[in-house]
Amino acid sequence: MVAKASLRLIIPLAIIQIVFLVIFGIKIQYHETARPLNTVSPTPVGSMYPMFQDVHVMIFIGFGFLMTFLKRYGYSAVSINLLVAAFTAQWAIIIRSAISGNWEVGVAEMLTADFAAATILISFGAVLGKTGPLQLLIMAFIEVVLAQVNEHIGYHILHTADVGESMFIHAFGAYFGLAVARVLYNEDVEKSSKESTVYHSDLFSMIGTVFLWLYWPSFNGGAVEGDQQHRAVINTYLSLLTCAVCTFIVSSLIDKRGKFEMVHIQNATLAGGVAVGTSAHMPIQPWGAMLLGAIAGVISTLGYKFLTPALSSKLKIHDTCGVNNLHGMPGILAALAGAVAAALSSKETWGNSLYSIFSAMESKNMTTAANTTEVIMGRSAMEQGGYQMAALCLTLAIAIVGGIITGFILRIPFLDSPKGDLLFDDQELWNVAEDGFPASDDLPLNGKPKEKSLDDTQIPML
Amino acid sequence: MVAKASLRLIIPLAIIQIVFLVIFGIKIQYHETARPLNTVSPTPVGSMYPMFQDVHVMIFIGFGFLMTFLKRYGYSAVSINLLVAAFTAQWAIIIRSAISGNWEVGVAEMLTADFAAATILISFGAVLGKTGPLQLLIMAFIEVVLAQVNEHIGYHILHTADVGESMFIHAFGAYFGLAVARVLYNEDVEKSSKESTVYHSDLFSMIGTVFLWLYWPSFNGGAVEGDQQHRAVINTYLSLLTCAVCTFIVSSLIDKRGKFEMVHIQNATLAGGVAVGTSAHMPIQPWGAMLLGAIAGVISTLGYKFLTPALSSKLKIHDTCGVNNLHGMPGILAALAGAVAAALSSKETWGNSLYSIFSAMESKNMTTAANTTEVIMGRSAMEQGGYQMAALCLTLAIAIVGGIITGFILRIPFLDSPKGDLLFDDQELWNVAEDGFPASDDLPLNGKPKEKSLDDTQIPML
Repeated sequence: MVAKASLRLIIPLAIIQIVFLVIFGIKIQYHETARPLNTVSPTPVGSMYPMFQDVHVMIFIGFGFLMTFLKRYGYSAVSINLLVAAFTAQWAIIIRSAISGNWEVGVAEMLTADFAAATILISFGAVLGKTGPLQLLIMAFIEVVLAQVNEHIGYHILHTADVGESMFIHAFGAYFGLAVARVLYNEDVEKSSKESTVYHSDLFSMIGTVFLWLYWPSFNGGAVEGDQQHRAVINTYLSLLTCAVCTFIVSSLIDKRGKFEMVHIQNATLAGGVAVGTSAHMPIQPWGAMLLGAIAGVISTLGYKFLTPALSSKLKIHDTCGVNNLHGMPGILAALAGAVAAALSSKETWGNSLYSIFSAMESKNMTTAANTTEVIMGRSAMEQGGYQMAALCLTLAIAIVGGIITGFILRIPFLDSPKGDLLFDDQELWNVAEDGFPASDDLPLNGKPKEKSLDDTQIPML
Repeated sequence: MVAKASLRLIIPLAIIQIVFLVIFGIKIQYHETARPLNTVSPTPVGSMYPMFQDVHVMIFIGFGFLMTFLKRYGYSAVSINLLVAAFTAQWAIIIRSAISGNWEVGVAEMLTADFAAATILISFGAVLGKTGPLQLLIMAFIEVVLAQVNEHIGYHILHTADVGESMFIHAFGAYFGLAVARVLYNEDVEKSSKESTVYHSDLFSMIGTVFLWLYWPSFNGGAVEGDQQHRAVINTYLSLLTCAVCTFIVSSLIDKRGKFEMVHIQNATLAGGVAVGTSAHMPIQPWGAMLLGAIAGVISTLGYKFLTPALSSKLKIHDTCGVNNLHGMPGILAALAGAVAAALSSKETWGNSLYSIFSAMESKNMTTAANTTEVIMGRSAMEQGGYQMAALCLTLAIAIVGGIITGFILRIPFLDSPKGDLLFDDQELWNVAEDGFPASDDLPLNGKPKEKSLDDTQIPML
């Protein structure tokens, strides 16, 4: 017997998976370096593959485990993360091919498909524990299209730089998700006792944090080459160093007993990776990257302490993971830093890199207007800064309007929105194992003897 | 005082380790690119090293943590995994050198030694919690020899392709392990209450799952180069995307309340990596890879639900990790897909890749009969398909007969086989720390309300 509840999710998911397969069958072919060749060329997989793998770890281990901090939502955090990302990656390959007209798949497309998944997973963070998987898949389905159109305009019409996609992924994903969260706001969340952590769930979350922190240089440098890639890696590394230190400083300063808060360490330490993301490949200098990281750590930590509670109570924007602090505000900071760096750029100090930096995403295999370099050369530095700001404004507009509309779509009654006691709880979706204490263990629990469970009967008492 | 029980394991282990050291001292030298050179050559470690490291994570984090799902066997799962793999890798380098006559060690040999360890760890999965470390080391000692001989016949005598070694590693390891499990069958396992999971052990297992899922493209592509490597990576990535989605679909469909099951997500999501393993470097097309992944996800999930319990109750084959569903059946599917792809291959569609695909493993540095290409060129496509099937049959025969014989050897009474209450339990091998329960958790435990702890006072009751 098939449960009726499951069909609501499973039928649309199965249909879409079959449609994806058919579209791949009809349209998608291997990238030319992956087709049978007459000569064995030296590793077409190239240097992009190791960076792709680092990003791959960020998407599935990083985001997945970062979100396991809730004490009763760990199965969903790491597993629905996998489902949504695996679904999104296929859809992103199709949508990006449709936009570019280039229906191929290779390592570069695997990287950009993973990037596309990141956008959705950031939005997932804003609504974590408050949406069902069908809602998430609908959100992903719409958001991928909007995010890819926005990115295409940013790179190929506005000709702006955003190497680590702090505007097109981080800010977009955060504000789209927050808009969805606002529309889906449900007063039950304020009453739930399940929106909290336990000791081991905070540690599981740190697995995600540390892998995100480690591999962020590959995220920001993965899509470019040469000296731009080298700078992207260095700037991101340095930004994260100062960001981590400043997060600890502020976390302690704002606690009334001077203690650290795990939620700050889990999240704000990463804000430096976002903040340097737009300008990471620019010659912003090592100190510039470090300054950006420091500011990001401060802003992000303060955001967790003061802004997140206020957003929820005053504006009814409930942000489960605090994506506004980790991806939203640092994404805007990144955009501002990118605009300022562009406005201050000159042929004297940046050399021939100047033009390639603003058409950096060409290496991602998208077809572009043939006149990209010409367009950029016709702009003054100040104008290029203005275009960078325009890209940010467009990103925020599409994300917020798109998120609001998507939120209303997700309120259609027959979807799988959890309510009341089922918020932040795995039990609606999973057959959940007994919590924590093995049935066979008859050790005192918090100093109090624990009742024996039924399974224990054949085991002798210690 | 040295405990007598420990000497049973430690004396043979120490002797073998010394013997390994002596053999390395007498015979093994560096690969020629690792010897002192007169010029600094450009990175002889090359592109293989990042892929080796990905596989390395799969072996030690992937297999190690995947097996931590048992609530009381986590220390052993991740640690004995390390011991067995570290032992096996040394032995594999020796055995492979003896077979090939090429007594060298370099990055390629590190990769193939890790591959060899994978075979043993898959068998370990079948007997997890039911064998002592001495039994496992004896099993590894025998199995490595048989698996390497089988692989050598497959590659160098039958001239078959199996780029991700879905036949020679996955199917071999699974059916060898299942044969051992059958011979070692002990009715106590059916009575044990410890063969189950708890909430955090299911999450620990997901660390292994996700790393295996992420790095599988490196496993399938690590041993080849050029366009074959690029295809292997793309096909594996795509296969795993559809496999993950289909696992969720089937997991929910077969549950009476439509819920997901963690054991399916932990394991069946990976079956796509196995299923595409034999043909990953062939031009099977993106849709072909996705179809294989989808089928694998379905078969594997159904296997966990229906086949594993039946094998245990009807045939007395108790498969702790369900390796038949993750490695066995998907390995056979991979072999069939490889045989079909080979039988349908032609010079027109595959180009010059046709011959190199069936001698692909040459890049793994094994000496071969000089006439490899000539032999393959003398075969029709249909004949090559037949040889692929012959390799599968030989693999299954050697694995099952070898496993049965090994099982009887492991039943020698003075070995360290755990029984009764010591099954699936770390306490026989480890000084076990107290099991922690978070102080702030006021959720019902097993449906029974738990007393509030002191920290809870500020949280309103629901």
